[in-house]
Amino acid sequence: MSDVTLQQVREALERIRERIQPTPVLRSDRLDQITGARLFFKCENLQKTGSFKARGALNTVFSLSEDQASRGVATHSSGNHGAALAWAAGMRGIPATAVMPSNANPVKVAAVKGYGGTVIFCEPNHKAREETAARFISETGAHMVHPYNDVRIVAGQGTVALEFLREMPDLDAIVTPVGGGGLLAGTAIVAKGLKPAIKVYAGEPEGAADASQSFNSGVRTPVSNPRSIADGLLAFVGDITFPEIMEHVDAIATVSEDEIERAMKLLFEELRVPVEPSGAVSFAAVAGGKLDVKDRNVGIIISGGNIDLESNPWARPPAK
Amino acid sequence: MSDVTLQQVREALERIRERIQPTPVLRSDRLDQITGARLFFKCENLQKTGSFKARGALNTVFSLSEDQASRGVATHSSGNHGAALAWAAGMRGIPATAVMPSNANPVKVAAVKGYGGTVIFCEPNHKAREETAARFISETGAHMVHPYNDVRIVAGQGTVALEFLREMPDLDAIVTPVGGGGLLAGTAIVAKGLKPAIKVYAGEPEGAADASQSFNSGVRTPVSNPRSIADGLLAFVGDITFPEIMEHVDAIATVSEDEIERAMKLLFEELRVPVEPSGAVSFAAVAGGKLDVKDRNVGIIISGGNIDLESNPWARPPAK
Repeated sequence: MSDVTLQQVREALERIRERIQPTPVLRSDRLDQITGARLFFKCENLQKTGSFKARGALNTVFSLSEDQASRGVATHSSGNHGAALAWAAGMRGIPATAVMPSNANPVKVAAVKGYGGTVIFCEPNHKAREETAARFISETGAHMVHPYNDVRIVAGQGTVALEFLREMPDLDAIVTPVGGGGLLAGTAIVAKGLKPAIKVYAGEPEGAADASQSFNSGVRTPVSNPRSIADGLLAFVGDITFPEIMEHVDAIATVSEDEIERAMKLLFEELRVPVEPSGAVSFAAVAGGKLDVKDRNVGIIISGGNIDLESNPWARPPAK
Repeated sequence: MSDVTLQQVREALERIRERIQPTPVLRSDRLDQITGARLFFKCENLQKTGSFKARGALNTVFSLSEDQASRGVATHSSGNHGAALAWAAGMRGIPATAVMPSNANPVKVAAVKGYGGTVIFCEPNHKAREETAARFISETGAHMVHPYNDVRIVAGQGTVALEFLREMPDLDAIVTPVGGGGLLAGTAIVAKGLKPAIKVYAGEPEGAADASQSFNSGVRTPVSNPRSIADGLLAFVGDITFPEIMEHVDAIATVSEDEIERAMKLLFEELRVPVEPSGAVSFAAVAGGKLDVKDRNVGIIISGGNIDLESNPWARPPAK
C-alpha cells in the first residue's frame, strides 16, 4: 500500500512551481570518466534556501486551509527544513516558529531568522525539544510540520525527480541521499511510477546507517548515537517513508566520511558549486563504486549546499 | 558596418551546442529587493572550463579546416581563454599551446595542462610574450587564437546572449562585464539584433576603465598600468570589438574594487555559486546603482567562476 501517489507529486509541482527555482542539470566529462557512467547532476543545492527542503515545506504550507494557515506553522528541525519552512511561511505571509536546542549552530539559527522565522530555544535534548514544541503548539494552535514523515512533505520532495525525469527521460538510475527518507521516498514513488524499469538507489553515511540496515533487514530499526559530517542525514527513517522505500528502492549503499569529503571536493572542482556533506552522499556512493552504474545514464540528486560560511574555509567569503 | 552578424552567432551555437553546458538562469528575491529590479542571472561560471570562454574557443577550433587544425592552435592568454582553448582543442583532438609568463599563476598553468595543453614559458613582459608566440607559430604553423579580437571568438561569446534571450525573451536589459570586449560585443550584436529596444550595458573596473573611457570619447584609448582584482578584465578593448560596442552598447559603468568584492559575496550568499571577481563586475554595476534598471527585467551575465583554490579562502576545499 502506498500512502503517497505520483498524482500527489504532480499536484505538488503545480502548487509550488512558480515559487521554486527550476534547478539545473550539470555534467562533467571528468566525473563520467572516473565512474564509467554518464552522470547527470540535479543541483538542488541551487534551490531556494539552498536545499530541496524548500519544495516539501512550500507544498505543505500552501496545502493548509486558510484557517490552519492563520495560526502559523512550527517545527523542531534545526537543519535545512527549519529554514525552508520559515521561507515557505514567508511566501504565504504566515508566522513560522522553529524550536531549536540552545547549542544549535548559530548559522542555522540565523538562517531561520533571516527568512523571518521565530526561534524558541530549549535544552539540547530530544525530550525537551518535543515537549517545548508540543507546548508551543497547544498554546498557539500552530500547525506542526515534520521534516520528513508527512505525506505532503514526501510529495513535495518528489517534485525533484518529477522535474528531473521530465527533462531527462532517458535516465537508467537515480540516486539520492537518505536521512529521514523524505527525498528518497518521494523520488522512488515518482521514478518507479513514471518508469518501472529505472533503478532507485540511495547513499547513506556509515555512521548513521539506520535506513540501510532497516532496508536490508526489512525492519525499521534505529542506530544509537548516529554521527557523520553529513549532519542532514542523522535522522531516523520514518514510519511513513520507510514502507515506500521498502517497496520501491533497489539498494542503499553506505559511504565513509572520507568518501563524503572526497565527493564534496570533486563536485566543487568539476561542477563548480559548493555542496554540503549531506548533499554529496549520493555522488559519494557512485564514486565509491558501490552501485552498479557502469555505462548507464545516472541521475544524481545533489540535495543541498548550505556550507557554514563562518567555520568552513571552503566557503568563506573574501576577507574585507 | 558590423563585422560579426547575428547569423554567425546562430551558426556558432549550432556548432558548439552539443559540447557546452546549457547554463542555468538563477534568481534571488533578496537581490531583486536590493536593486529594485527583476534580475535573471545567466551563470557562465557553471560553463565547461568555468567561464564563457569555452564558447568562443570551441567555435574557433571547430571552424578550422582539417589542414589548419592538424597543426594545432596557440594563444598567449594566461587566463580563462588559455584553459578554454586547451579544452576545446582536446575536444577536436588537436594540440594546443599557451605562451605564458614565467611568473604566471600556477593555478592557471595547471588549468591549461589539466586540459591537455602545453605551456611555453617566457620572460614576464608583453614583448617577450608576443615574440615567443610568433616564433612558436612560425616554427610549427599552429593557428593563433586571440582571446577576444577575432570574429569567431566574438560569435562564440555571443551564444551566451542567444541562449539567454531564447529562454528569457522578456528581458528589458542585459549586462555583461567588459575587458577586451569579446563577450560585450557578441552580446550586443545578438541582443540588438533580436530585440532592438533592449538596453545593453556593461560593467568595468575603475582601475582598468579603457573601454568606458574609449566608449565615452569615441576613440579607442588604452589606460596605462591597468589594475584590478578582476584580473580577467585588464585587457585593452580590441579594434574588432570596439566598433561593435560603439554601435550597439547603451552605457558602460565603472565599479570600485569594494563594489566588486561586495558583489561576489552577495552572489555567493544568494545564488550559492562561486563567482570570480571579473564575473561579478556586471552585477556590481547594477548593485552599485550605476545603471537604470528600476522595475525592469534585467539579464546579468555572470561570466566566470574560476577562483584560485589555493590562495582564496573563499573557495578552499575542505582540509584533508
